[in-house]
Amino acid sequence: MTPRVLLPWSDIAVPDGVEAAFYDGTGTPPDVSAVEFYVLPYDRGPEPPRLIAKMPSLKAVQSLSAGVDSLLPLIPDGVTLASGRGLHDLSVAEHALALILAAQRDLPRWIGQQRAGSWDRVHTRSLADERVLLVGYGSIGRAVERYLEAGEADVVRVASTAREGVHGIDELPGLLPGASIVVLVLPDNPATRGLIGARELAALPNDALVVNVGRGTAIDTAALTKEVADGRLRAALDVVDPEPLPPGHPLWRLPGAIITPHVAGGSNSFHPRAVRLAGEQLARFIRGEPLVNVVR
Amino acid sequence: MTPRVLLPWSDIAVPDGVEAAFYDGTGTPPDVSAVEFYVLPYDRGPEPPRLIAKMPSLKAVQSLSAGVDSLLPLIPDGVTLASGRGLHDLSVAEHALALILAAQRDLPRWIGQQRAGSWDRVHTRSLADERVLLVGYGSIGRAVERYLEAGEADVVRVASTAREGVHGIDELPGLLPGASIVVLVLPDNPATRGLIGARELAALPNDALVVNVGRGTAIDTAALTKEVADGRLRAALDVVDPEPLPPGHPLWRLPGAIITPHVAGGSNSFHPRAVRLAGEQLARFIRGEPLVNVVR
Repeated sequence: MTPRVLLPWSDIAVPDGVEAAFYDGTGTPPDVSAVEFYVLPYDRGPEPPRLIAKMPSLKAVQSLSAGVDSLLPLIPDGVTLASGRGLHDLSVAEHALALILAAQRDLPRWIGQQRAGSWDRVHTRSLADERVLLVGYGSIGRAVERYLEAGEADVVRVASTAREGVHGIDELPGLLPGASIVVLVLPDNPATRGLIGARELAALPNDALVVNVGRGTAIDTAALTKEVADGRLRAALDVVDPEPLPPGHPLWRLPGAIITPHVAGGSNSFHPRAVRLAGEQLARFIRGEPLVNVVR
Repeated sequence: MTPRVLLPWSDIAVPDGVEAAFYDGTGTPPDVSAVEFYVLPYDRGPEPPRLIAKMPSLKAVQSLSAGVDSLLPLIPDGVTLASGRGLHDLSVAEHALALILAAQRDLPRWIGQQRAGSWDRVHTRSLADERVLLVGYGSIGRAVERYLEAGEADVVRVASTAREGVHGIDELPGLLPGASIVVLVLPDNPATRGLIGARELAALPNDALVVNVGRGTAIDTAALTKEVADGRLRAALDVVDPEPLPPGHPLWRLPGAIITPHVAGGSNSFHPRAVRLAGEQLARFIRGEPLVNVVR
């Protein structure tokens, strides 16, 4: 019997009597000719999605990413695609806070001084009392907000459409001058691409911090690089445009920039949640029940 | 007329008709012979407290520190001493979170890679779901807890005396093996000195993170240095014993250690709160009302 189920990790619960094979996105994949349910390895580049074309029996694909737009063209007609919506929320929110606090509390300075064994002390910025423009108010945005509120920041919410307590994205120009921190938690789509350009950055007050944990395309990288190089703005970015940021790009070396290589979603808090979702979805599939997080 | 009031900053509200002088702890102090109310400059070393001995008219000293034990011997009989209790809570809590998230999310690695222009990616630890032993449950501890709960950590509270929902310090030995993060928020006193020694550190599981934003004396520095050098434990410390940490101390260079030079309390969130407290206390003093935060 060839396996009906292809999973990335062996700690995902497999119902009794179901034969599963494992493929974590590295090495040679097993025989996939009978695979009906495929849980894509997370964050392993283009090979795992390409395998879909070799699965004539495929009925459902479970992605562990929240955004699956790039997968859609690879999913054959009649095959269900379910996303990993929610799995990364807390991990991304945590990384957003790590970036904000690192920037406000001067961690790059302390880490540099540590190398020199230096006890030089300076007072730093804070997060408390700062006005934080939280742009993107889905489940990740709300997780970021819980952290910001614990820190007594003054949070102003912005989302694609205005609603009770949330500003619409069209109100952004009027909100930027009053914000000392802007946190972008936006997906990549035509409406978000280039949202923060030279004009928007110019509207921010001196010393404002621009944080991006959504998608790099929301910010005009050249315009942000210029403002940070001038010492007028600061940046803390987990995502940039393009990715990877080329080795010689000036943004890497600016003292006012903190850059992490798109790692916000990939922390330990993701794994147990992903294992749980994959196991639950597999159980639903085997019982013939509808999956959750279905995209198509 | 010589000034009755000596203040560290000119943005503190001074009641009408009251003459104030200013001394921020640097340079030569003004004539203090008539000073009755002295707000000590914050974090400026031993000179500002020594000035107390030159104030024959002194009636009240307002410190901007939460801990004033070292000041007590300098306060003449009959002079009121008020502390800065609460002013630093949020600043210290924020720094504690900055240290925890920096350690869990590998910020020293990313900052090092940034210098090299490297986009190498690895998955990291997280704060979510980790069991955090919060040792010290006063107002700073509660501010740390609000952050930890926003991050969905599993918080276990420990304080000097057990109470509803809070373990007593005598229960610590039984709690250490189950904790992956220990956060110390303790004052320096005979009960806290040396609380975390070689035996307590040995009780922690592999890879646990020891965070200290209280006082350095709570931890046996040599024992912690050994565990971190062995790669068995990690540390993120704003306070150490001794301070400053000597330039050649091995702790500075350990990859598993993050060290900041006792800066948790000194961020922007402190200043507006300190200005407000000083102004309110001065107003009370001038109206002949009792001060708040009176220590003696």
